[in-house]
Amino acid sequence: MNAIFDVAPDASARLPYPYLLFLGDAVEAGFAKTAFGVRDWAGDKCVGEFSVGATVTTGLPVMTPAEAYAEGARAVLIGVANRGGVIAPAWIASLVEALEAGLDIISGLHNRLVDVPELAQTAARLGRRLIDIRVPPAGLPIGTGRKRTGKRLLAVGTDCALGKKYTALSLANAFAERGVDVDFRATGQTGIMIAGGGIPMDAVVSDFEAGAAEVLSPDAAPDHWDVVEGQGSLFHPAYAAVSLGLLHGSQPDVIVVCHEPGRETMLGLPDFKVPSIEETIELNLLMGRRTNPAIRCGGIAFNTSAMNAAEAEALMEAESKRLGLPVADPIRRGPAFDRLVENCLK
Amino acid sequence: MNAIFDVAPDASARLPYPYLLFLGDAVEAGFAKTAFGVRDWAGDKCVGEFSVGATVTTGLPVMTPAEAYAEGARAVLIGVANRGGVIAPAWIASLVEALEAGLDIISGLHNRLVDVPELAQTAARLGRRLIDIRVPPAGLPIGTGRKRTGKRLLAVGTDCALGKKYTALSLANAFAERGVDVDFRATGQTGIMIAGGGIPMDAVVSDFEAGAAEVLSPDAAPDHWDVVEGQGSLFHPAYAAVSLGLLHGSQPDVIVVCHEPGRETMLGLPDFKVPSIEETIELNLLMGRRTNPAIRCGGIAFNTSAMNAAEAEALMEAESKRLGLPVADPIRRGPAFDRLVENCLK
Repeated sequence: MNAIFDVAPDASARLPYPYLLFLGDAVEAGFAKTAFGVRDWAGDKCVGEFSVGATVTTGLPVMTPAEAYAEGARAVLIGVANRGGVIAPAWIASLVEALEAGLDIISGLHNRLVDVPELAQTAARLGRRLIDIRVPPAGLPIGTGRKRTGKRLLAVGTDCALGKKYTALSLANAFAERGVDVDFRATGQTGIMIAGGGIPMDAVVSDFEAGAAEVLSPDAAPDHWDVVEGQGSLFHPAYAAVSLGLLHGSQPDVIVVCHEPGRETMLGLPDFKVPSIEETIELNLLMGRRTNPAIRCGGIAFNTSAMNAAEAEALMEAESKRLGLPVADPIRRGPAFDRLVENCLK
Repeated sequence: MNAIFDVAPDASARLPYPYLLFLGDAVEAGFAKTAFGVRDWAGDKCVGEFSVGATVTTGLPVMTPAEAYAEGARAVLIGVANRGGVIAPAWIASLVEALEAGLDIISGLHNRLVDVPELAQTAARLGRRLIDIRVPPAGLPIGTGRKRTGKRLLAVGTDCALGKKYTALSLANAFAERGVDVDFRATGQTGIMIAGGGIPMDAVVSDFEAGAAEVLSPDAAPDHWDVVEGQGSLFHPAYAAVSLGLLHGSQPDVIVVCHEPGRETMLGLPDFKVPSIEETIELNLLMGRRTNPAIRCGGIAFNTSAMNAAEAEALMEAESKRLGLPVADPIRRGPAFDRLVENCLK
């Protein structure tokens, strides 16, 4: 009742939706990043928003839980985080109202919904689900390394928090636009809310890390693609275990290296230099060959959000020449992005 | 009450001992490997053995829990595993007797002691501890990559289950014999029972894997050595995440590569070749440099238990010449082992 799946998931296990996005009492957009991400990448899964005095908005229609239920909503999605990352007391009455209106609740916050007595009691009384995205499914297997059917792409990174999720989402959309049968496979909280399913890879016990990644992208038709959201970096002194289990278990045919030009040191770790793009390609291919000898690099995704369009374009062209690979910003798209997509699919 | 530590451990957190070794109803020595390992490597922590009809024996004095308590014992250590790796119903009366005699219980089995009602109730009534070795401490931190004081050695492997624990124990003993201030740092169940403390690294959530390894080998005096038990292999398709988190977090100054000559494919994975010793050195140094640029390989530990002494000696001499590094069997010891020890310490 408090995991997305009660047993190891199959590809069809899904969160309840459409969603009503809950913005809490957020007065700064930065705290509602989850809601914005879900609106941007899974707008078709959202019917509206509600809050308890928030001044930020997603621009979706404001509605009560009862109105949202009448519009088809099946879950409230907590799209906001306060400073501690916990469920705030000020939110609880609204969340109880949502349960009473017929909606389940989905949360990626630190404290668990079932540990809030009012929510646990109301959900039990009404038969609603309290879904904590941070809780991995039970019954995950040990990895086997067995080669699976179908094609897989994994977004890898020079560091954390530089666009691996949005790169994977943008590539999956571009694949679909070209008529490719594709699934985005989510490995983090916001990704799971967007996809409506997935496994929070950083919450999996390390012995099962590769096995979880194997479960996440199961056997598929020969021309089907799984585009897997990456996590961390093989060079990250804290999170490389997550990255390596995900790489081994995903057994990608193609990696795309995500990088933020100008970032010199790892986020929050000023003593650790960000590795070069070449080193990152080389190490991921070296380790990835263990479970897929045919692994190759499809290209580079730059996060150029801090640059203007002309600067970004010039840099990406120069880097593409230097590296001999497509380099594109998956948010800006354009011809360079098309070349990246084509090179991944070729 | 069901973890070794209630919060992230420090170097002084310890299991209760001396131990009374419990052999259950074992009739095959293979099922009592834990008891034999603890007897061989922590004999000074053991006062005796008891069982419920076992035909195997550690050779230690047979005594009742009450007799053991009178001899100073403070815990029963379950040194046996049956086929399912669970606490057998036939054992429960004896374990209750041990609690009543004043002993805590230590277990590394799959099901938790606290989930056996008779044990939970008796322990609660008498104020005894039920200690499940498989449960990692709560409150483990995210890794920081900060360089710590003191020296560290990590046993790494070409595969699982080929002698990393015994290599680390034998090296730690040899360091101590030379007057070096040394701690063996255990990362698996039997190792934790031998050392009287440690962290079960394969049970740690992957996000905290490197952080757990940092906690396990804390800042120490400049000439102090931690000899850290390795886990898995960077080349293992299921367990490499554990190995990488442990490598990054241990930030070893020296690695010793453990290998079993003649093993061609990974244990239980006939499609995966065992990597060469050179590849294993190279990849561990490459990844280990991220948190300790001064990392080096001290030599190679061979598990030659399947060979006779002359064969083993000839092979190790030839391999030592070929690799330009000491190669020794840490169980056989001898002059080659002395060279390995000296090269690690130099």
